[in-house]
Amino acid sequence: MDYEAFFRGELDDLRAEGNYRVFANLERHVGAFPRATRRRDGTMANDDRHEVTVWCSNDYLGMGQHPAVRAAMVEAIETCGAGAGGTRNISGTNVHHVELERELADLHGKESALIFTSGYVSNWASLGTLGARLPGCVIVSDALNHASMIEGMRHSKAERKIWKHNDVEDLARKLSQIEPGRPKVVAFESVYSMDGDIAPIREICDVADQYGAMTYLDEVHAVGLYGPRGGGVAEREGLMDRITIIEGTLGKAFGVMGGYIAGSAAVCDWVRSFASGFIFTTALPPAVAAGACASIRHLKASDAERLAQRRNVALLRARLDQLGIPHLPNPSHIVPVMVKDPVKCKMLSDILLDDYGIYVQPINYPTVPKGTERLRFTPSPLHTETEIEKLAQALHALWSQCALARAAA
Amino acid sequence: MDYEAFFRGELDDLRAEGNYRVFANLERHVGAFPRATRRRDGTMANDDRHEVTVWCSNDYLGMGQHPAVRAAMVEAIETCGAGAGGTRNISGTNVHHVELERELADLHGKESALIFTSGYVSNWASLGTLGARLPGCVIVSDALNHASMIEGMRHSKAERKIWKHNDVEDLARKLSQIEPGRPKVVAFESVYSMDGDIAPIREICDVADQYGAMTYLDEVHAVGLYGPRGGGVAEREGLMDRITIIEGTLGKAFGVMGGYIAGSAAVCDWVRSFASGFIFTTALPPAVAAGACASIRHLKASDAERLAQRRNVALLRARLDQLGIPHLPNPSHIVPVMVKDPVKCKMLSDILLDDYGIYVQPINYPTVPKGTERLRFTPSPLHTETEIEKLAQALHALWSQCALARAAA
Repeated sequence: MDYEAFFRGELDDLRAEGNYRVFANLERHVGAFPRATRRRDGTMANDDRHEVTVWCSNDYLGMGQHPAVRAAMVEAIETCGAGAGGTRNISGTNVHHVELERELADLHGKESALIFTSGYVSNWASLGTLGARLPGCVIVSDALNHASMIEGMRHSKAERKIWKHNDVEDLARKLSQIEPGRPKVVAFESVYSMDGDIAPIREICDVADQYGAMTYLDEVHAVGLYGPRGGGVAEREGLMDRITIIEGTLGKAFGVMGGYIAGSAAVCDWVRSFASGFIFTTALPPAVAAGACASIRHLKASDAERLAQRRNVALLRARLDQLGIPHLPNPSHIVPVMVKDPVKCKMLSDILLDDYGIYVQPINYPTVPKGTERLRFTPSPLHTETEIEKLAQALHALWSQCALARAAA
Repeated sequence: MDYEAFFRGELDDLRAEGNYRVFANLERHVGAFPRATRRRDGTMANDDRHEVTVWCSNDYLGMGQHPAVRAAMVEAIETCGAGAGGTRNISGTNVHHVELERELADLHGKESALIFTSGYVSNWASLGTLGARLPGCVIVSDALNHASMIEGMRHSKAERKIWKHNDVEDLARKLSQIEPGRPKVVAFESVYSMDGDIAPIREICDVADQYGAMTYLDEVHAVGLYGPRGGGVAEREGLMDRITIIEGTLGKAFGVMGGYIAGSAAVCDWVRSFASGFIFTTALPPAVAAGACASIRHLKASDAERLAQRRNVALLRARLDQLGIPHLPNPSHIVPVMVKDPVKCKMLSDILLDDYGIYVQPINYPTVPKGTERLRFTPSPLHTETEIEKLAQALHALWSQCALARAAA
């Protein structure tokens, strides 16, 4: 077989479908978030660069540039060094990992927490281990769960049942079809990242309790952002104690990197002891743990970032409404502007980037269903009113230029 | 089902088998590697701590404390911030990622490279994607391949054939049993981490060529350490161009965190475009990429660390031989001291830690076969002659105290 020809052929197919991805090469500037320098060919020396405002970052609150986060990271690098130097079991556990796990357990009101190298790995390893080792386990999964959860469930080889997105009646129906004695895990997210809708957590917990199921809640798009201490939607709604395992990330609102689960001492210790994706990998750098810890502590105490973000989200939505730019209504911080055409979606993104210095990735199939292509904006506390107005005016101009449908008044 | 009781029961079983892991809580000290402070209960405030010499780190050359690595990380944090802020596709690609991928392609003499959040993820995602998307693919895997490779192959659902560890004749036999037209991937490692033996790369490539198979070589325990520029065993033996995909880590000899593959532009672009574990995860922090880049550049130009490590490895082996402490002979930097009893192995490790301030994890089943339990030492360039002598004398005393068999003179 000609392997090279095969790889090239598949890449050509992607290009023909319009699904070939080109990464924007950015350099963010501390003190100037959400602005960044984009380099067209990516070299450090290259002059072909321009300034952009980033409108699609998952560093939702700009904590990546926060002085306390940077100071904690620099301090850890200067005292403990760059990497952890081993797996958690073989010389890789550092005081900063231990502190971070305590901070996370406290954030979620749980006995314990366990950190992973990423949110992807935390979902994949935790659901993969639950599904594989709970004898006869059935995982009951929301239809729109993230790729990392799906891969973990697939990997576990456990039986899976998919319930209609955020549909509690369908969840109850699916649970009622499972033999009563079998272990069951209800897996879902709080904030779904592409539509920005939020799960009915209380009702889901009620149904899970009724059928004796564990609950596994992915709060990666919510931790830091919701709840009085940034514990997520379950904290805001007083439901953290109803969830068996809360999964979160240190790489979005907390601004650093890594993932985690929080739960009982036994369940965290069990995942720690059996999950291949936890055991056989180098631990997070102490500086990453220290930075995340500082970020969590700040957002436990400070509401200012959350309030400023909400104000900016509301402001952008109001301007889009006034200008008739269609966007999905939802109760979260995610503003999906609906283009509903893959070619126009990519074209709009290119024009915004090249002509307006506005950076937002087009979201096309397969990330979202065909016909629902969108630009997904994530206003942060750091976007200025001027930047919001500039974005609204740019979309206004492009909506006319590209003859796109306006929203009904 | 009582989930808590299930988790507790499984943990009790682990304890009863002697396989329950307790992590040593360490704080490494920049400027004093390989020494660290161990905290017995893990709190920052606790006084129950003591100084230890770490003898089982995978920060093989001590690059985690190197001034150039720390400076690059601090500079990136102060200019670009803490985290990447998104996936590589959605606002997460930073100039430091692009630079690092170029540096890695150059290190291995390949057109291209692709970074992942860990070596575990690079193996899992790359082999998983090859196995799943190459139509009719068979992965032919060395019997001692790492967990991350095994999980990737399992996940791909591709047909697998296991060949006897480092046995080229058995590899040829297994390849000869596969229909000629099917895509085949020969997956193996250069340095195997538990025995420290090294694969016959040239012979493996010859057989792979004969049967039209791709080659996938994991060099995680070799990059930085072997070859004139630290390109690994394949560089040392002039064989990098014979390998389709070289996989490596930034978290061992390079001292930071992350994993990568290097290969043709097409194969890297193809994995980039199709691997879920690459696409749907937050990118490495720019500082991690910058630190790794600085480390690779240093080890491309400097042989001093490699030479000093080799001298220390030889010195430790010579002292163990003089004292009759049995260790596995191998051509690598890994010194497995054979205890061949799980209880004694754990006990030796505990006494070394508590009484001698020597930290080495016991390696027991299932990481190694029963009856081959060992202490695995990794001398670095930073261990002093005094520390090596102290270790040799401690083992000498314990070998008598525990009535362990000496090696034949």
